[in-house]
Amino acid sequence: MLTQYPPMGWNSWDCYGAAVNEAQVRQNAEYMAEHLKPFGWEYVVVDIQWYQPTASTHEYEPFSDECLDEYGRFVPAENRFPSAAGGAGFGPLADYVHSLGLKFGIHIMRGLPRMAAHRRLPIEGSDYSCAEVANPNSICAWNPDMYGLRQDHPGAKDYYDSIFRLYASWGVDYVKCDDIAREYPHCRREIELISEACRGCGREIVLSLSPGPAPLEQAEHLKKYANLWRITDDFWDEWPLLKAMFERAEKWCIHAGPGHWPDADMLPVGALRQCYDSHPLGKWTNFTQAEQRTMMTLWCMMRAPLMIGGELTKNDDFTLALLTNRDVLAIEKESWCAHPLYTTGEECAWIAPRRDGAGCYVAAFNLSDRARRVQVDEGCLEGISGHATELWTGRSARKGLIARLAPHDAAVWRIDR
Amino acid sequence: MLTQYPPMGWNSWDCYGAAVNEAQVRQNAEYMAEHLKPFGWEYVVVDIQWYQPTASTHEYEPFSDECLDEYGRFVPAENRFPSAAGGAGFGPLADYVHSLGLKFGIHIMRGLPRMAAHRRLPIEGSDYSCAEVANPNSICAWNPDMYGLRQDHPGAKDYYDSIFRLYASWGVDYVKCDDIAREYPHCRREIELISEACRGCGREIVLSLSPGPAPLEQAEHLKKYANLWRITDDFWDEWPLLKAMFERAEKWCIHAGPGHWPDADMLPVGALRQCYDSHPLGKWTNFTQAEQRTMMTLWCMMRAPLMIGGELTKNDDFTLALLTNRDVLAIEKESWCAHPLYTTGEECAWIAPRRDGAGCYVAAFNLSDRARRVQVDEGCLEGISGHATELWTGRSARKGLIARLAPHDAAVWRIDR
Amino acid sequence: MLTQYPPMGWNSWDCYGAAVNEAQVRQNAEYMAEHLKPFGWEYVVVDIQWYQPTASTHEYEPFSDECLDEYGRFVPAENRFPSAAGGAGFGPLADYVHSLGLKFGIHIMRGLPRMAAHRRLPIEGSDYSCAEVANPNSICAWNPDMYGLRQDHPGAKDYYDSIFRLYASWGVDYVKCDDIAREYPHCRREIELISEACRGCGREIVLSLSPGPAPLEQAEHLKKYANLWRITDDFWDEWPLLKAMFERAEKWCIHAGPGHWPDADMLPVGALRQCYDSHPLGKWTNFTQAEQRTMMTLWCMMRAPLMIGGELTKNDDFTLALLTNRDVLAIEKESWCAHPLYTTGEECAWIAPRRDGAGCYVAAFNLSDRARRVQVDEGCLEGISGHATELWTGRSARKGLIARLAPHDAAVWRIDR
Amino acid sequence: MLTQYPPMGWNSWDCYGAAVNEAQVRQNAEYMAEHLKPFGWEYVVVDIQWYQPTASTHEYEPFSDECLDEYGRFVPAENRFPSAAGGAGFGPLADYVHSLGLKFGIHIMRGLPRMAAHRRLPIEGSDYSCAEVANPNSICAWNPDMYGLRQDHPGAKDYYDSIFRLYASWGVDYVKCDDIAREYPHCRREIELISEACRGCGREIVLSLSPGPAPLEQAEHLKKYANLWRITDDFWDEWPLLKAMFERAEKWCIHAGPGHWPDADMLPVGALRQCYDSHPLGKWTNFTQAEQRTMMTLWCMMRAPLMIGGELTKNDDFTLALLTNRDVLAIEKESWCAHPLYTTGEECAWIAPRRDGAGCYVAAFNLSDRARRVQVDEGCLEGISGHATELWTGRSARKGLIARLAPHDAAVWRIDR
Repeated sequence: MLTQYPPMGWNSWDCYGAAVNEAQVRQNAEYMAEHLKPFGWEYVVVDIQWYQPTASTHEYEPFSDECLDEYGRFVPAENRFPSAAGGAGFGPLADYVHSLGLKFGIHIMRGLPRMAAHRRLPIEGSDYSCAEVANPNSICAWNPDMYGLRQDHPGAKDYYDSIFRLYASWGVDYVKCDDIAREYPHCRREIELISEACRGCGREIVLSLSPGPAPLEQAEHLKKYANLWRITDDFWDEWPLLKAMFERAEKWCIHAGPGHWPDADMLPVGALRQCYDSHPLGKWTNFTQAEQRTMMTLWCMMRAPLMIGGELTKNDDFTLALLTNRDVLAIEKESWCAHPLYTTGEECAWIAPRRDGAGCYVAAFNLSDRARRVQVDEGCLEGISGHATELWTGRSARKGLIARLAPHDAAVWRIDR
Repeated sequence: MLTQYPPMGWNSWDCYGAAVNEAQVRQNAEYMAEHLKPFGWEYVVVDIQWYQPTASTHEYEPFSDECLDEYGRFVPAENRFPSAAGGAGFGPLADYVHSLGLKFGIHIMRGLPRMAAHRRLPIEGSDYSCAEVANPNSICAWNPDMYGLRQDHPGAKDYYDSIFRLYASWGVDYVKCDDIAREYPHCRREIELISEACRGCGREIVLSLSPGPAPLEQAEHLKKYANLWRITDDFWDEWPLLKAMFERAEKWCIHAGPGHWPDADMLPVGALRQCYDSHPLGKWTNFTQAEQRTMMTLWCMMRAPLMIGGELTKNDDFTLALLTNRDVLAIEKESWCAHPLYTTGEECAWIAPRRDGAGCYVAAFNLSDRARRVQVDEGCLEGISGHATELWTGRSARKGLIARLAPHDAAVWRIDR
Repeated sequence: MLTQYPPMGWNSWDCYGAAVNEAQVRQNAEYMAEHLKPFGWEYVVVDIQWYQPTASTHEYEPFSDECLDEYGRFVPAENRFPSAAGGAGFGPLADYVHSLGLKFGIHIMRGLPRMAAHRRLPIEGSDYSCAEVANPNSICAWNPDMYGLRQDHPGAKDYYDSIFRLYASWGVDYVKCDDIAREYPHCRREIELISEACRGCGREIVLSLSPGPAPLEQAEHLKKYANLWRITDDFWDEWPLLKAMFERAEKWCIHAGPGHWPDADMLPVGALRQCYDSHPLGKWTNFTQAEQRTMMTLWCMMRAPLMIGGELTKNDDFTLALLTNRDVLAIEKESWCAHPLYTTGEECAWIAPRRDGAGCYVAAFNLSDRARRVQVDEGCLEGISGHATELWTGRSARKGLIARLAPHDAAVWRIDR
Repeated sequence: MLTQYPPMGWNSWDCYGAAVNEAQVRQNAEYMAEHLKPFGWEYVVVDIQWYQPTASTHEYEPFSDECLDEYGRFVPAENRFPSAAGGAGFGPLADYVHSLGLKFGIHIMRGLPRMAAHRRLPIEGSDYSCAEVANPNSICAWNPDMYGLRQDHPGAKDYYDSIFRLYASWGVDYVKCDDIAREYPHCRREIELISEACRGCGREIVLSLSPGPAPLEQAEHLKKYANLWRITDDFWDEWPLLKAMFERAEKWCIHAGPGHWPDADMLPVGALRQCYDSHPLGKWTNFTQAEQRTMMTLWCMMRAPLMIGGELTKNDDFTLALLTNRDVLAIEKESWCAHPLYTTGEECAWIAPRRDGAGCYVAAFNLSDRARRVQVDEGCLEGISGHATELWTGRSARKGLIARLAPHDAAVWRIDR
């Protein structure tokens, strides 16, 4: 099954914005193969605007000349992805990533390129044209490139089938489709078309939907048609965003399971915003080490996908250690049925049974701005007793589920019956 | 003063949709000059899509080839308006309308043509280009042609100035600007830019804003920046729409005055939908004669602009008489401060003082589906007494303001002190 | 007709709260008869809690012993209204007010006294009891005394009939019914019952509904069933409340007419809050003289009822002059069809035709906190020309409708054709 | 710990409404002791209006004479509860219930009796009176007896303390407090006062809050201050209400745990509405046997409290079997961290790990109106494999989690690793 467990990998957005290039993708893939793969990391994902020759930051450039094939499908900008020359698309890059034992993913936008409609290009394998299928009144609120499709037009399916055929031919393993997950109800049918194109393309491709917040009341639709879907708007290295994730996690946790994982967005750790000479927020994560532990703990307890946002080759020791704590990462694969125990403005605790029946995990979070002694009442274990190990420190908890936590820090115990 | 009184004229939309041509405009202008001008009718207005060579109905065609000049300004499609050949634009047609003693108007859309942005055309008289000024995320909800402008970009003013310079050079007297009147708050600044361009173009041009409903709470902004603004969505020859106008009229009546007139849309009388071989609603107004009297009475009492929607040359005797009742039309110019007296589901009455001090007007409407005796309590006159004449029949009202009204019919009395 | 013009009078609330007594009512009536009656003032109204022996301020005392007759009807507390002794009720006091050539009014609450229900008292002239008719779940949000009635119970009509019979027997001319005007939709039927009881009681009694804001969309229901209804919550001597009245006035002005007048609440002028030894807001109006002119001007232009709130015997020269400016007061009786001309954050202007045809009134208001030159464009007169007199100063306006106005001040011109 | 597991018992409302009497309570207690206690059932709860001598159905009688002690506290109506004579209150009845090895509970309303305020009775052990503490503007929307308390008045705590002292002296084990659980935010502080009075009264008393729906966003407040709280409005024997419970259960399941249990209301099984000679809905549950299985299965999977609503002595074989299926009832005590797997309009499935690590429970529901084959994908077990037993039939599931379910029926499997 695709996404039996939450996917783990790297995505180019947080460090390279709309401007990532082939060399950067390759170096991150190589780092992953060497340092992270043994811990379960495997996806390498190229984010938005790979078809735009002049992209240089996180901004979008309207009315620019994007690279299209003769069927109105985006193809990689060759000045940024040289191996795409000669119509090869992402095939050579995907091959390289595969050669490292990893998987390759790309970002797409709902709809088709505006210029494909204005130029009235044909759709590959279809009797319809892009102009017939494009909906001139359906645009993205934050990106200038696309028209949504006329969802009830038979050519809409043709277009989506045509792009997934192309991606399958390139060897793509993962597609992050954007401008869609929070666009209910009007994009409901478009989600179904994309899902069907993905599942029918002849290659196993993970389908991830963005941006969030996806509406909670569409959980069943999302579970049926996608493997991942974003539960928040873009997540960055700011404490208020991390704190706000607890409320999202509480609402979505019951919807996590094999094949369908609520997505809390990339992990903005390590070297970020590398596409700027200087950026007001700096080129390194603004999260404290405590906050990064809290993030990893929450993501693992809620079984969120783990997609690293930082430039991997610049990882420092802390970051690498954070991403390679086997005991913490194991929560993603060995727990289930997690939920919060209680939440106050100052602290929060979560519990998750272990599927092997050998006990459970309990996490405690200090949401306050001061150091704080946090104790989780063992009554929540409902009689389970055994040895408790705190997984960030490796220490045994002899006196109960008690931790002195720095501001915004977390502890997580494995209880072994 | 421009629009000292509510404008009166003809508009091509109700009979010719997006497809009117020069011959049709000329024949309606000629009819107006001969039959209607003596009663105050004077504007001849060409509605939407005059730049689109293939328009044939009320529908819009996305991604079509509209006619642009080298500065991204629409120009008339020459196959439809032959006199525009050689870059003359609407100049020759405006000249002809003027030669008949009438005034000439056109329809425009907020923003600039999408293709002008994608082609990165320059703006006449500006250092900026259409691509810089267009907002790729601002589109019309119902028409596929335009991008709205970046309201705070200095080039936005340049673009609007450039089009009004062109219209002034053509001799345009009236501009109906669409996709804007109900688009508060985001189009607030765009309204101001258009108004300033209109008033600064060197020619007196009436500015009318569409579509409705404009928001009531923006009344002061509209009064300041426009001469007319629509208070409803498109109005057609259906009784429910006419009945609903009473509520709009009640709310807007206090905002009518010299230079600023709430607009209840065209009068769908006579020959409509002429651009179709056959149309489910037919090619003649579906309003009964009674309903047409009600419409004219309400429009006159609330002092709404009067824009005929029907093909004038096909007027029958009733229609011509309806449009040339001097006593009723006089209400538009001689009354003021009108307001409803009372409204029930079944009937309604309005009152309007006469500005000359010689009495007032009282109108009574049968909103029910049955014939009905309607009597307006003369207590509402607050002591004014005198001779009352019903203006549609010309009869004296000796026994009070009493009328037996057919379903949906109206009576209106002039009280002469 | 009752309330051919908006009523004018005095109400005890602003100066005596819930605690007014007979001596105070008499002294205000005597003052009115001597100083105000020649200018049209005529109603003397005793406000809320006249049945409560221990009332002393504007506060309500829950679970107190109110004075009831054996039928569950409030009667005046004899310690406060000695002439009510022996079951005379307000009869003697009403007689005295009538002897001065004035009219007498009282305040009532929707519903019946809670204790009348708990004591299961009979209803006068009915087979039902107060316990059967009272709705235990319908209470007032701000007063602890009453239960609303079961509107669909036949005894509800009996109870309201019984109290209006009593009031008619006392000689009451005016009833201000509270806890009802803004209580749509659930009190819709109760309004109708009260109105029918009032009109059927055998005496002409003005019916006034409080508190506001009454819902604008119920205007026709209010016009049909009441003579006055409040358009705002309680109005006091604070500029923000006065400034906010302009928006209410704009919405309601079209609903003013013989028999039905939107009510902007009492005029808090002169000596207020006399029931306190000391009060944080003081015992004299906080309105500047300018603000009082603005208030009187707006109330007259919109033809609002005029009910003085201050203790009349303490009027100073300014206050008396304010209340006896014949030219300004004449607007209430001689104008009609008023409406605002324009409104900005800084100024506002209104116009009202004169019913005699001899011209109109124009008022200008400085809503800003600075002195300000205000000029009303004479284009608004639509051609009426003639001599203009400013009515607060008595000066001719030779150069146009121009005034230098102090902060929050007003000017009002009569234009004589 | 109080409510280590969800409470199980019987409540008088569904069968006897406001009119239950001592004999009826005793006979149900005796039945429970004999037939149900071995399966974990233990609470016997007297619902609303035990202080009202004339109650006879589910209706409330306004302005009636309820039984109060001299401190404004309700006491049992002696005509209905003879053992309460002589000021004994519920003491003798509680003693009897305890003698059977069971626990005794009562229903109360937020606030104090209206008559206690109007009579200005003192509060036991306090310097304040009921009149001072009662809020005359806080009433229940559906019951006519009470005033809420002034939450910030020091006497409010005194009153609640005084009633819980009384209940503790009687030997009450369980208090169901009504008119409060859905009354956020205005009853937030009143919940805290009641909780503190309950926990401070010197006896262990379970606190249950009604009616629902309690607001989900107050889950943490409810978990902190109450042992149970209702998540829906009153639940009766109608399929639409049962079907609607699935959505509630989904939202609330993460908040169930030791000491705090979301409450889905009584189980309307067996003999209901016994207080009527005849009732349009009949005197027996309208649920089919299938629906009763679905109800029990859902309540157990979500770990909802189990309170039987039917007259126990009239149980038929099916009902008794339904209530004494040890394997199904075990889910309440042996599972944890349950959540829905998926939900469609036609079917639904839930999963719950077993705390002993030996496997899990999986339930499947047919929400459709037709018989239906339901199969739960074993992928949801994430690798757990073992023997599956369907707990209603006792049959082994050899071919997977498959059931042919009658309309509205359920199956539930225990997976033994």
